[in-house]
Amino acid sequence: MRAVDIAIGLPTVGVFDPVVKAVQLMAVGRMPGLVVVDEAGRPLAVLPGSQVLRLCIPAAYQDDPLLARTVDESSADAFWRQLGGFAVGDCLPHPIARPVTVTQDATLLEIAALMARGRTPLVAVTGTDGLLTGVITLDRLLTSLAVAGLEDQPPG
Amino acid sequence: MRAVDIAIGLPTVGVFDPVVKAVQLMAVGRMPGLVVVDEAGRPLAVLPGSQVLRLCIPAAYQDDPLLARTVDESSADAFWRQLGGFAVGDCLPHPIARPVTVTQDATLLEIAALMARGRTPLVAVTGTDGLLTGVITLDRLLTSLAVAGLEDQPPG
Repeated sequence: MRAVDIAIGLPTVGVFDPVVKAVQLMAVGRMPGLVVVDEAGRPLAVLPGSQVLRLCIPAAYQDDPLLARTVDESSADAFWRQLGGFAVGDCLPHPIARPVTVTQDATLLEIAALMARGRTPLVAVTGTDGLLTGVITLDRLLTSLAVAGLEDQPPG
Repeated sequence: MRAVDIAIGLPTVGVFDPVVKAVQLMAVGRMPGLVVVDEAGRPLAVLPGSQVLRLCIPAAYQDDPLLARTVDESSADAFWRQLGGFAVGDCLPHPIARPVTVTQDATLLEIAALMARGRTPLVAVTGTDGLLTGVITLDRLLTSLAVAGLEDQPPG
């Protein structure tokens, strides 16, 4: 099995999409993260869920999580409301980390090593033209590794 | 809402548990990661899913993901078989990163800031005695933030 065999289609976002949409997509779809694509459909960023969450958090709290302790929990409403005006591109870190991508012929072990090294539960799969063709999640990879292992067993 | 209100119970592993068990727990339970506890029940490590996966990957591939490309996909069987002998404690990185934990009175924003900064989709919640009392996943946090936001809305 190669990347092309286990990649799935997942919704993506662009830099002009609202941050709220990105978080909702991820939460409702129970996705472990999101791929941000450019207008041509090339991956710009591959964000683990914690880094999609990071898009919503004001910079002051990112730098000093203890500051967030001082904020009363009733501010959760404000937390969501304040996101209204921001687009994904406004909130991406600078510089953007190089997206974690594999080509369609990547082996399962290669994908596993990249996820581990990049601390990411998803990787983008790209065609020879650099365009996104699918996404591989950690869940999907683990299932595929298990199935590949079974297939290799001699018949009992 | 505070950490204690949204924490859930999830299976944990110890350093003597087999790596295979850790990966299976996570995959079958569709958990975004795992907490490793010591014998007293204190969190030793809070591992995002990609770092649980990392426990399975031979060091040579971790350092050089492209090396994994040279391995034929039929080796997936060997990948699982070779894990047979290893315990979680054998495969944790050294030194172990300090576990991402919060106390039971942590606010939702504090938890969000910690997840973002620690690049982790789960945090451990500990009591005053330092023992694990529950886990908060990113999914759970996002849902709770959304609900908290709704509660704060003036009635329509």
